[in-house]
Amino acid sequence: MDEVAAFLGYLAGTLTTISFFPQLLKVIKLKSAKDISYRMFVLFILGVLLWFIYGILTNAWPVILTNLITFIVASSILVLKIRYDREDSK
Amino acid sequence: MDEVAAFLGYLAGTLTTISFFPQLLKVIKLKSAKDISYRMFVLFILGVLLWFIYGILTNAWPVILTNLITFIVASSILVLKIRYDREDSK
Repeated sequence: MDEVAAFLGYLAGTLTTISFFPQLLKVIKLKSAKDISYRMFVLFILGVLLWFIYGILTNAWPVILTNLITFIVASSILVLKIRYDREDSK
Repeated sequence: MDEVAAFLGYLAGTLTTISFFPQLLKVIKLKSAKDISYRMFVLFILGVLLWFIYGILTNAWPVILTNLITFIVASSILVLKIRYDREDSK
């Protein structure tokens, strides 16, 4: 049962993480991220970070690993957004 | 420790769920959802559904409840997208 749960967790995490990659690729390709709301994205990244800590506290590896990857992808999008928004306002 | 973890889990779930509401509101307001990719959104909804099952198997209530709400919000966006895309193609 634990193995089934872990497998489902990793599969779930893979799917929800994968769904963020097109956003990252779009931002890189367009060199723009005006469509993304700062406020909502910061809330989301904060949420992912809390899921990561929740995973550590409850010893849930699928939660820890997949949220770590989502955190890296989402933070990359945010850093690119800050950079591109600055360039646009020059 | 368990209570701290549960609190963090609910807070995490609230933040990651909240970050989806602007998308729903935007789709309702614009009566259009052309920016949203079907393929990625279906993957995401499938992922959320698997997180929900993972939560049941591991008895993790924050995971169960917040993914249930995200599933409802994301499915609503998908249903609206199907409806608006049909209307546009008439």
